[in-house]
Amino acid sequence: MSSKVVLRSGDKWIFHNAASRVILKAMNLTSRTKLRRLPKRGSHDPATIHAILDDGFLAHVGFSLNGQPFVIPTLYGRNENKLYLHGSAASRMLRELEGGIPACLTVTLVDGIVLARSAFHHSMNYRSVVAFGTARKIEDPAHKTKALQVISEHLIRGRWAEVRGPSEAELKATSVLEFSVEEASAKIRTGPPADNEEDYVLQVWAGVLPILSITGAPVPDAHMSNGHNVPEYILKYRAR
Amino acid sequence: MSSKVVLRSGDKWIFHNAASRVILKAMNLTSRTKLRRLPKRGSHDPATIHAILDDGFLAHVGFSLNGQPFVIPTLYGRNENKLYLHGSAASRMLRELEGGIPACLTVTLVDGIVLARSAFHHSMNYRSVVAFGTARKIEDPAHKTKALQVISEHLIRGRWAEVRGPSEAELKATSVLEFSVEEASAKIRTGPPADNEEDYVLQVWAGVLPILSITGAPVPDAHMSNGHNVPEYILKYRAR
Repeated sequence: MSSKVVLRSGDKWIFHNAASRVILKAMNLTSRTKLRRLPKRGSHDPATIHAILDDGFLAHVGFSLNGQPFVIPTLYGRNENKLYLHGSAASRMLRELEGGIPACLTVTLVDGIVLARSAFHHSMNYRSVVAFGTARKIEDPAHKTKALQVISEHLIRGRWAEVRGPSEAELKATSVLEFSVEEASAKIRTGPPADNEEDYVLQVWAGVLPILSITGAPVPDAHMSNGHNVPEYILKYRAR
Repeated sequence: MSSKVVLRSGDKWIFHNAASRVILKAMNLTSRTKLRRLPKRGSHDPATIHAILDDGFLAHVGFSLNGQPFVIPTLYGRNENKLYLHGSAASRMLRELEGGIPACLTVTLVDGIVLARSAFHHSMNYRSVVAFGTARKIEDPAHKTKALQVISEHLIRGRWAEVRGPSEAELKATSVLEFSVEEASAKIRTGPPADNEEDYVLQVWAGVLPILSITGAPVPDAHMSNGHNVPEYILKYRAR
């Protein structure tokens, strides 16, 4: 975070790479990332935001075309405040985003179902990040390859070194975008239900049903010749 | 599906409640839901779309304010082509959506990491639905309560009957929106990696690493008196 500017504006933390844009961002913060609801669940702390982004691998990216919003799921990788997205050069999402239109990238991790005694106080335990920014296309092949490595290692560390890297033709067929996070906020809910005082006497089981992501046994490709051991980094993969 | 109009337009299936809007929707389909990329992974079949929506419980809802897109995670429930969303009456998302602005609701279920021999052919196995439509606020308390029940039962079937239902004050503090799906498309990827022919000889482990959602042991609320058994519908909950 050494290159980042972290400033406090009112009760909001903001962070940005360019000091010159901080005041603008502080203004934008009010309308875009201000935590209106349940601010006790919210955070603008970069470490909190980065931890959630690093724990996830699937983002939902929003952009708007002629007033019509689109929300598209996509993998991503992170390096500091840059997020990398990739896909086919023909992808509508990437072609629109690379024009630098305003975008929103959201990552949500579900941790559990919060079962209260009243319907009203049911909730989820979750961690989410809503990040605003703009993307630009990476043209330089070396930079592009590096960004693809970031995405690959973000998804499954150790894989990149083992596989055949992208050919020139494959690089050309792939669009890679660098999404600069201009503002972001995190929301986290943890812990038990919070019921109304008078409801605690109700004879209803209450608590949290944890939800976890796990990996199943690796399914080897039928085209693989015998004698391939499953690599350690796959066996030890921690689902998120 | 008895009340639905299902029409085929070119190679696209569309479905809608109001026959009078079908042509409009068929036109919109071109720009919004046309499956540009990898159409073999895509579907406009209502049964496919509904099955994915029923398997998920978390949506990412996109809307745009003054050209700035927002993507917010939220729970939902489904009844036919209506999706129900809820939250605090103070929620920015719900207050914007209830004005009937164009919205996009996306549900993504990750099934596995597809590990190919080349970096280029890595992929995810997943099921996703991108639904376009508009929302309206449900004002009638009985309809509102019914919609909340749909959301609750969608999340965890059996819970609603056991808990204290919403009071008049709680209903007032809750906004419930009915999101009418006007168009939707599904994308599904399953199966092993598809490598280039010449890469099959590479000595790289290839296959699929399945990713599954499971529940952990229910965590009882510390405020609960002893003697509460965990209900069957919680023990038998199938994480999705």
